[in-house]
Amino acid sequence: MQISELSRATGLPVATVKFYIREGMLPRGTALGATRADYGVSHVERLRLIGALTQVAGLPLARVRDILAAIDEPGPVPVDAIGRAIGALPPYVEPDGDLSRARAAIDQLGLVYDERFTAVAQLDAAIRGVEAAGLPWDGATLDRYGAAMKQVAIDEVAPVADMTTPDAVAYAVLGTALYEPVMLALRRLAHQARMVRGGSA
Amino acid sequence: MQISELSRATGLPVATVKFYIREGMLPRGTALGATRADYGVSHVERLRLIGALTQVAGLPLARVRDILAAIDEPGPVPVDAIGRAIGALPPYVEPDGDLSRARAAIDQLGLVYDERFTAVAQLDAAIRGVEAAGLPWDGATLDRYGAAMKQVAIDEVAPVADMTTPDAVAYAVLGTALYEPVMLALRRLAHQARMVRGGSA
Repeated sequence: MQISELSRATGLPVATVKFYIREGMLPRGTALGATRADYGVSHVERLRLIGALTQVAGLPLARVRDILAAIDEPGPVPVDAIGRAIGALPPYVEPDGDLSRARAAIDQLGLVYDERFTAVAQLDAAIRGVEAAGLPWDGATLDRYGAAMKQVAIDEVAPVADMTTPDAVAYAVLGTALYEPVMLALRRLAHQARMVRGGSA
Repeated sequence: MQISELSRATGLPVATVKFYIREGMLPRGTALGATRADYGVSHVERLRLIGALTQVAGLPLARVRDILAAIDEPGPVPVDAIGRAIGALPPYVEPDGDLSRARAAIDQLGLVYDERFTAVAQLDAAIRGVEAAGLPWDGATLDRYGAAMKQVAIDEVAPVADMTTPDAVAYAVLGTALYEPVMLALRRLAHQARMVRGGSA
């Protein structure tokens, strides 16, 4: 298809499509002459992914670029490519060297401790926040969230087994970012239902 | 205690304490003369709450004020006061009238549909985001998150039964805001562990 058709198929202005090409985020089409190029399904899919990351997930362009790099050059270890892409998602935490709280939690739950994975520093910062606010933080509290998230993760990760690495990275990033607000809204609604019904919900 | 001791006890500069008093967020102390006042444990606790909401949860001052109003004037129905306070937490979603996706999800899970509760519009927006990105959205996907969040909510809500309404509002707001990033980091770590271990984590 021509660029005008690509624009219609994705709902993005031609100028925006050209911008992503210039920025190296969208591959050039196959040249059909000096001023015309042919675009395919892969271009439509790439633009949909960029749109979901910028408009739905609200990521800044620099972070989207990091994610596209992990998709386009995943390297030999899929879980590492996924880890790099997930690292482009908020919250953006400055690790300050002490990750002891996260390490203890990861050990207790039998998860994987790898400092390159940004969720380690995110977890450490989150635990410090809980402690700073004077909220309970103990083994039972950790188990409450750990058990729920392990259960959720089983179904979330299952489809990845049948995907190519680029597709797995895209799915992991979108799924991580976009089911998150669903889960958090449901948590608040579950609280409310229990309080309204006195514990029977 | 005097204002200088209150400052030391909370780690906040005297000027900041005075600012919160001027803004009506911290009650004045009991006057001991023209220029001195006595502050008590309730002042320390209020400043800790303000600190947790502004510095740990990162809320803007206007939202903290809404939460303090729900604590100070909870009204006759505790769950309504909690709902108003929770409504001051992000994400800030503009409801556009169509809440049909949230209503269907709430019905399926047997939760409570009340449009005043901001999590309803948050859920609807979150589901639209999932759909816009082309991710799966069906009854099984909803159950995955609904079951996990109902389970988590049981333990989270339990302590509220023994609290005064103001304490329950403060606990609900802090717990909602500050366990959230713990849970989300654990979700990412649970994904990673399953991928690293090929499904055995």
